[in-house]
Amino acid sequence: MCVEEHHHMQLGIIGLGRMGGNIARRLMLNDHTTVVYDRDEASRATLAKEGSTAVADLPAMVAALDKPRAIWVMLPAGAPTEETIETLSTLLEPGDVIIDGGNTFYKDDIRRAQSLTQKQLHYIDVGTSGGVWGLERGYCMMIGGDAEVVKRLDPLFDSLAPGLGSIPRTKDRTATDDRAERGYIHAGPAGAGHFVKMIHNGIEYGMMQAFAEGFDILKTKGSENLPADQRFDLNVADIAEVWRRGSVVSSWLLDLTADALATDPQLNAYSGSVADSGEGRWTIEAAMEQSVPVPVLSSSLFARFRSRQQSTYGDKLLSAMRFGFGGHKEGPK
Amino acid sequence: MCVEEHHHMQLGIIGLGRMGGNIARRLMLNDHTTVVYDRDEASRATLAKEGSTAVADLPAMVAALDKPRAIWVMLPAGAPTEETIETLSTLLEPGDVIIDGGNTFYKDDIRRAQSLTQKQLHYIDVGTSGGVWGLERGYCMMIGGDAEVVKRLDPLFDSLAPGLGSIPRTKDRTATDDRAERGYIHAGPAGAGHFVKMIHNGIEYGMMQAFAEGFDILKTKGSENLPADQRFDLNVADIAEVWRRGSVVSSWLLDLTADALATDPQLNAYSGSVADSGEGRWTIEAAMEQSVPVPVLSSSLFARFRSRQQSTYGDKLLSAMRFGFGGHKEGPK
Amino acid sequence: MCVEEHHHMQLGIIGLGRMGGNIARRLMLNDHTTVVYDRDEASRATLAKEGSTAVADLPAMVAALDKPRAIWVMLPAGAPTEETIETLSTLLEPGDVIIDGGNTFYKDDIRRAQSLTQKQLHYIDVGTSGGVWGLERGYCMMIGGDAEVVKRLDPLFDSLAPGLGSIPRTKDRTATDDRAERGYIHAGPAGAGHFVKMIHNGIEYGMMQAFAEGFDILKTKGSENLPADQRFDLNVADIAEVWRRGSVVSSWLLDLTADALATDPQLNAYSGSVADSGEGRWTIEAAMEQSVPVPVLSSSLFARFRSRQQSTYGDKLLSAMRFGFGGHKEGPK
Amino acid sequence: MCVEEHHHMQLGIIGLGRMGGNIARRLMLNDHTTVVYDRDEASRATLAKEGSTAVADLPAMVAALDKPRAIWVMLPAGAPTEETIETLSTLLEPGDVIIDGGNTFYKDDIRRAQSLTQKQLHYIDVGTSGGVWGLERGYCMMIGGDAEVVKRLDPLFDSLAPGLGSIPRTKDRTATDDRAERGYIHAGPAGAGHFVKMIHNGIEYGMMQAFAEGFDILKTKGSENLPADQRFDLNVADIAEVWRRGSVVSSWLLDLTADALATDPQLNAYSGSVADSGEGRWTIEAAMEQSVPVPVLSSSLFARFRSRQQSTYGDKLLSAMRFGFGGHKEGPK
Repeated sequence: MCVEEHHHMQLGIIGLGRMGGNIARRLMLNDHTTVVYDRDEASRATLAKEGSTAVADLPAMVAALDKPRAIWVMLPAGAPTEETIETLSTLLEPGDVIIDGGNTFYKDDIRRAQSLTQKQLHYIDVGTSGGVWGLERGYCMMIGGDAEVVKRLDPLFDSLAPGLGSIPRTKDRTATDDRAERGYIHAGPAGAGHFVKMIHNGIEYGMMQAFAEGFDILKTKGSENLPADQRFDLNVADIAEVWRRGSVVSSWLLDLTADALATDPQLNAYSGSVADSGEGRWTIEAAMEQSVPVPVLSSSLFARFRSRQQSTYGDKLLSAMRFGFGGHKEGPK
Repeated sequence: MCVEEHHHMQLGIIGLGRMGGNIARRLMLNDHTTVVYDRDEASRATLAKEGSTAVADLPAMVAALDKPRAIWVMLPAGAPTEETIETLSTLLEPGDVIIDGGNTFYKDDIRRAQSLTQKQLHYIDVGTSGGVWGLERGYCMMIGGDAEVVKRLDPLFDSLAPGLGSIPRTKDRTATDDRAERGYIHAGPAGAGHFVKMIHNGIEYGMMQAFAEGFDILKTKGSENLPADQRFDLNVADIAEVWRRGSVVSSWLLDLTADALATDPQLNAYSGSVADSGEGRWTIEAAMEQSVPVPVLSSSLFARFRSRQQSTYGDKLLSAMRFGFGGHKEGPK
Repeated sequence: MCVEEHHHMQLGIIGLGRMGGNIARRLMLNDHTTVVYDRDEASRATLAKEGSTAVADLPAMVAALDKPRAIWVMLPAGAPTEETIETLSTLLEPGDVIIDGGNTFYKDDIRRAQSLTQKQLHYIDVGTSGGVWGLERGYCMMIGGDAEVVKRLDPLFDSLAPGLGSIPRTKDRTATDDRAERGYIHAGPAGAGHFVKMIHNGIEYGMMQAFAEGFDILKTKGSENLPADQRFDLNVADIAEVWRRGSVVSSWLLDLTADALATDPQLNAYSGSVADSGEGRWTIEAAMEQSVPVPVLSSSLFARFRSRQQSTYGDKLLSAMRFGFGGHKEGPK
Repeated sequence: MCVEEHHHMQLGIIGLGRMGGNIARRLMLNDHTTVVYDRDEASRATLAKEGSTAVADLPAMVAALDKPRAIWVMLPAGAPTEETIETLSTLLEPGDVIIDGGNTFYKDDIRRAQSLTQKQLHYIDVGTSGGVWGLERGYCMMIGGDAEVVKRLDPLFDSLAPGLGSIPRTKDRTATDDRAERGYIHAGPAGAGHFVKMIHNGIEYGMMQAFAEGFDILKTKGSENLPADQRFDLNVADIAEVWRRGSVVSSWLLDLTADALATDPQLNAYSGSVADSGEGRWTIEAAMEQSVPVPVLSSSLFARFRSRQQSTYGDKLLSAMRFGFGGHKEGPK
């Protein structure tokens, strides 16, 4: 980050959860001014102590911001985001900007942008990756919306992004737009930011499942279900560690894996019931709209669906058919 | 079956489980003579009462059969079959035939046939489909081995096979070998019979999983996890029944499904833990040797693997990574 | 079909393609009266010669039908069906029934039914399986909508359905509603018919792909890419034929496979570029809404996507990565 | 690397291709002595100029090495490696070590180790990752065999490995064996090294395919097959670049992707025909032996199989079935 070169800006932030709170903090670390709101009063108070101007409702936020205003909505996708933007659209004035930094479905962005345009309001969608590490590492941002507005907000994005950091530059890269190297891009018109973020998450699911399957084989190679002379009692923590340097699978997800396995190689802390959010599903929908075969991305999603069930009706039907043709009685698990 | 036209033959049968016993019975119904052995004395006694000559050990069986002898081994694949054939090879005489009707891996057939040839013994592998229904419906048989020997045993295969039955003949079929229409084929040299049967089972897994997934969606469309206005409370028994006539998915597996659902639409009798036998795995191996993409056959196998586990190490690793980057805590199942 | 017992009814039919024309014919064979329309004059003339009353536009059809009218729309899903129903809704009178027999997405049915109810019009969705064989075999029908209206139209459904035929009755079936056994069901409220048909097609894709993969292995087992001593030159036509009797995979799709292979075992007549229609995709969407893992149904869909491409951008990216880490140059196909 | 602390050792290297040559070079950079052989004279001459002792055949290599000898075989897996080790086993003396650094199937390692033990020769298997970048980045090594022998050779492994480098240490890691952090592990007895490397490659396939599918969706989102108002013309080079910093999918494979896309975003240089080596297949075999569901790893392998074909027999069969039931004629690609 180049603190010296950029303008100090003011941003309204709605939603002070894990993401919204840290976005405010990272901006303040870079000398920007934040006006914050959360329906939870304690969250507001916390940020106020750290330097934000906390307000008690949306009209107060609008009143507290200089024109043209910029407000970053960082709420759960769906109704909370939708209703907040709806309300803001009645409070804001032509030229103001609403930024949706959540995990909104990109087609909702397109619809909203069209609707807000009629009120001369700007809508910017920001797919934001970085999770709990964003405050420290910076946020990787994929931005959709009007190019000029994205430009206007550049000091904010520049401060939130990771920057070049210690990661080596891509050899042969000659692109003139250096924002990608600093960790954010203007992906295209409204919706394009969340579209790219959605695909990011789809890929993330696939990479995670690749590691999950591989480590499952490594772990069960020591299982007593195998004949003794076919077993290896492998040290999965060491394996994750060694792959971090010089191997083809080195990655941040592997770093996290090594971290988890260093202290809990049996992973006893986890039930194995794995949630999924909208992006994984929307990625499959997008693939179907575009006739792209995505066996890995879909298998990754389905593995999560399956992880949350003890047994499926489908499995029982398999047993029923097996009983039907072979008289096989399937024993209990 | 054309009982009038064929020779009445004599067959030794080793292994009187569900399959072996019924093979003896179906042959006797067609006026063939059977000499039977099973290590379980009660099984031998049962068949003896039904008309078989029961013998107490393998030498007795060899002594009881006319030359050239034909012995059908109907035992679990692997060691039981292997050891029995090994023993027989020391007892039989040039020109005798060993038939393996079990679920042997086809490469074992090839090896055995080569080894037995050195003793001038014949080896025939018979992939046998039909399960508990074979006695009534007849057995669909895929036969590997020397064409002349297969010819010699034809009266046996003809009697065991379903025959033309009430199933309409394939229009445009002009093949001169009518055995396929009567329910058995000479697939090729040793191993070819079990190879074709192996693929049959691979396809069977895929078809079963297709039904399993489809009925899972039908069933869960009534789930309380869905908003009330998106639910249909579908009658799965009626759906299976209606598809039996005039639909594209009509099949024997659907008949069995309709059967199972008619009395237990919740499938409460089944745990949902589904076994798999060697053929499904060998099918994937064959596909890999031949570079054939088999996403459906492999997914069907993996669904069974997964059905037998409460949770996997891989799923726990997904949770661990999610905790690592997002601070997500995965709740219990 | 029990021609004697049912009332002879009158039905309007819009769309005289392969399906609509044969529906008219099968109804006339059962002494029902049909009033038909197609924008193609020749199609109308053909049906008129066969006994239908052909009309030149929708107002003429409405005028020609007795009240309460019943009109079966048999058009491509999407705009053609939507616009036709929209027009009909302005021409029909309270109590009249619109039947959509096409491949409509079930959520469109729900929306339409709600909208038509406001005009006191009835809407019935009929998922119709049977393809080009329906005239002869009868149509398997899955019906959604108001139970009373479905009852009123029963003579039509009864005539169109396959009836019990020669297919053995499901043992243990005790359901009192015998429509399923005669080839049609009232699946539930509006949309339920097309929902069940959609899943039928999803399963169909999975079964087809299971056969495709299995026969691919059988065929390539004779490939010159394998060492000579590992090849079997298998007769795929005979294999399809033999499985038709007594095997677990016996099915109508196998009958069709045997038919195709009897005259063209190399399948040279086909390019291998395989289309898919909406149902396969909607099935995956439904599975995602209900969190049902569907690896086989999705893999089947993706195999079709892939079949229509020479090479994918994704594959090229794999090559690019391989070149990046290993210096591997991927040769031309 | 800690050049000062380790002994300088001597190593024989057989096979001076991309990997073997650079292994010799990296060892010499660290003051080890190398005796090299390749059947290609020019390759030997090149290394000789760079400081190796080049020998003309295996007996000469054995003669040139001090006892106890250590010879690293870096040849294609299968016959070339097998035959070389066979020959070495007749030339070496008790206490000598053969290291197989290639991509050998781990069951072959187990067999060889047992056989060589009878001659009092040691066998060490080293799964080696790093590709063309190994000279610069170091090689990530997974080692199987006798612990004492691995210890004896430690100076070599230490020099070849990447070392701690600039990669942050895993927090909470308390393992006392720091070799994993320096880029190599003793995974277990003979075969364990190649087993772990095999799984590494399986995971690699899955990660690569995840990226391939994701970028395919990104790229085709701009396709003219989509309605104009649903297209985004995305800059894939910028997307790959932006994800390198702060995103969850940051990884070495993404770095390589960014590299490739920086200069050729259409990937026109690649045919899209993707090879696979043994490890991907062996990983699936291992999963099947251990009953581990691996939908992602298998789908990744099958995508490569598919990439090498214009059309499959299976796809043609789908078309044939579709023609059978629906009269659909599939057009040319």
